[in-house]
Amino acid sequence: MEKYIVVQKFGGSSVANIERIQNVARRVMETKNKNNHLVVVVSALGDTTDDLEAMALKLSSNPPDREMDMLMSTGEQISCALLSIAINALGHKAISFTGGQVGIRTDNTHTKARIETIDAKRIKKALDENKIVIVAGYQGVTDDDDITTLGRGGSDLTAVALAKTLNARVCEIFTDVKGIYTTDPRIVPEAKKIETIIFDEMLEMASLGAQVMQARSIEVAKRFNIPLHVRSSFSKEEGTMIVKENEKVEEVAVRGITCNKAEAKITICAVPDKPGVASKIFTELAKAGINVDMIVQNVSHTKLTDISFTVPDAVFNKAITATKKISHKIGAGEVLSDENIARVSIVGSGMRSHSGIAAKMFQTLAENKINIDMISTSEISISCIINYKFTDKAIKALHKKFNLGNS
Amino acid sequence: MEKYIVVQKFGGSSVANIERIQNVARRVMETKNKNNHLVVVVSALGDTTDDLEAMALKLSSNPPDREMDMLMSTGEQISCALLSIAINALGHKAISFTGGQVGIRTDNTHTKARIETIDAKRIKKALDENKIVIVAGYQGVTDDDDITTLGRGGSDLTAVALAKTLNARVCEIFTDVKGIYTTDPRIVPEAKKIETIIFDEMLEMASLGAQVMQARSIEVAKRFNIPLHVRSSFSKEEGTMIVKENEKVEEVAVRGITCNKAEAKITICAVPDKPGVASKIFTELAKAGINVDMIVQNVSHTKLTDISFTVPDAVFNKAITATKKISHKIGAGEVLSDENIARVSIVGSGMRSHSGIAAKMFQTLAENKINIDMISTSEISISCIINYKFTDKAIKALHKKFNLGNS
Repeated sequence: MEKYIVVQKFGGSSVANIERIQNVARRVMETKNKNNHLVVVVSALGDTTDDLEAMALKLSSNPPDREMDMLMSTGEQISCALLSIAINALGHKAISFTGGQVGIRTDNTHTKARIETIDAKRIKKALDENKIVIVAGYQGVTDDDDITTLGRGGSDLTAVALAKTLNARVCEIFTDVKGIYTTDPRIVPEAKKIETIIFDEMLEMASLGAQVMQARSIEVAKRFNIPLHVRSSFSKEEGTMIVKENEKVEEVAVRGITCNKAEAKITICAVPDKPGVASKIFTELAKAGINVDMIVQNVSHTKLTDISFTVPDAVFNKAITATKKISHKIGAGEVLSDENIARVSIVGSGMRSHSGIAAKMFQTLAENKINIDMISTSEISISCIINYKFTDKAIKALHKKFNLGNS
Repeated sequence: MEKYIVVQKFGGSSVANIERIQNVARRVMETKNKNNHLVVVVSALGDTTDDLEAMALKLSSNPPDREMDMLMSTGEQISCALLSIAINALGHKAISFTGGQVGIRTDNTHTKARIETIDAKRIKKALDENKIVIVAGYQGVTDDDDITTLGRGGSDLTAVALAKTLNARVCEIFTDVKGIYTTDPRIVPEAKKIETIIFDEMLEMASLGAQVMQARSIEVAKRFNIPLHVRSSFSKEEGTMIVKENEKVEEVAVRGITCNKAEAKITICAVPDKPGVASKIFTELAKAGINVDMIVQNVSHTKLTDISFTVPDAVFNKAITATKKISHKIGAGEVLSDENIARVSIVGSGMRSHSGIAAKMFQTLAENKINIDMISTSEISISCIINYKFTDKAIKALHKKFNLGNS
């Protein structure tokens, strides 16, 4: 029987303590016993990363990025060594590696480096020796052998990139939930675990608020067509497969519903409606380091228009200051703002061919007396900004209307 | 003015918490401001190494050495990154490196590797850029890029080896005591800090119980004639210089007094006095992995002799079992043992030329009614095994008799 390579990634909560590390070790052994070649990527134990960061911030308000990477990368090195020790204790040969040791080369953008090449020679050698290979996630090295990290959620990226390089059959992402749900089960108890979802939908859901996987890793998986399996490390149940569109996935108009309450809305009134004005506004905000999210500008029938946009709550004050400054400079009117908003989005690749989805969404909100502040659409998603206190009500109503539940 | 290279090593207690790391950073800056090139070697924060080891032992009673090195080396990586961040926060450029990054190549004897070569290119480049270089102690890498550790006290070795490679002017060992004392000040309050001591004396003292520095690092420093300065990280006071004999060191008969209470004595009675018997006994013990310390065999006037030796308390039971086995095999008599012993030693290079030192030691013990069980001598030391309850009394009396105190 031919051996397939399987890549498994275990998140921080899956290896938060000794018992959980032992649980992961048993889990890994089960997969190995099915006669696969196995590469396991681990995140840092539980809160290690936060603890290390807190220590650094006590020493400096602005620690050098290179030194932070040197520090932060130890979390994953600890957990991969411990997992290897746990597997060896169960009687199977395992060997742990840092990102650098398995040839993960990155650029030198410390704290958010990009993987450039992976030389999988050492992994292949270890697999040929029938060893289970454990790799520290979230890290690589530059050409100068400086340690880099890949940013939050970077262990997902390590797993997907290794799966690509090794031509793995599947990349399993083990986490503390059972898969991707039609919406947040804490809001809608009838939310259903999605069996299969396509990359584009998953990408849209991740960027619209679903927090299970890092968006960048999904992009990479999509680009190289690496099937992802998001599942729970605490249950044997199958999770959610994330695959390419052309595979046999039932096409539905709406796959899932996401929300994001951590946004605020800013409106500049009476903006002179002439070319280059929008560019000026958003250049100013970009200079202030503010990531603008949704932008809406209505067709104007006069020489003045209103421009609205949303920003993450965390940068709201900074954004207001920058907006007032540029508003004054371009001769616009008042700046209005509202922190009490939420974005509710429906996502589904079937929207491309099904018509009337948007109308159905607006109608559902109207039936529930929920006012829509802003609307924005992509090819496979529709988002509405509403008052945040109606978020759960809106999600429940939409989930029911689009028939996403179990019942 | 020509710049000298200074290597400083800070032990775990010197970097045990954020405040102490900041203290070390300030200390380092003071040296740097004297216009030196500075390379700083750090141990792991306080109890990190013990904590990591405890986690591993919860997972396995016999974790693979390679994986242990992967785990344990993170302690020093964390402390060197944090110290670098602390120095940068004080406004000076610093850069941290793992053992592997500064080219410390070792053999592959994991957990007690030996340094083979150091390629100091990267350190020299960083020094040329006027950066303070921080190196993770206790570690290196094999030719396969596997991480190795150098055994307990290995950070001392890293410091001495770097001092040798960089042709440093001095290697300063910062610790939580003010230097090397004539004897343990907790036993003899009048104990005096030694200003200068020669390598051979320090080596003898380290192997006879003084725990300030790892013996292997002193050997390396001796071999390459690298002056060591053992001093406190909590005080500006000069510590103890460890230097070569031919430098201007006052020759005294007795430089210091050490003791070791963690030994036990075993005697095999009525051993047939014929060639090869001693060899059989100690080969058997070596096979059982027992490190025998002092060995004494008296001239025999009959065909039977007694052989006594000491072993560390930790392996006493194992040693008794092995001894009884071989004693039976060679047709010897009873096996006697005594765990309640201590070894008291006087050390001094002046012994080579001064006569009567041994007699004075035995006389002092006799005056204090302390019985001597065994005697062993080297060129520059004399050790007596006595009942452990007289240890402090013996040390106090000897310290006074040889005039080592402050008063």
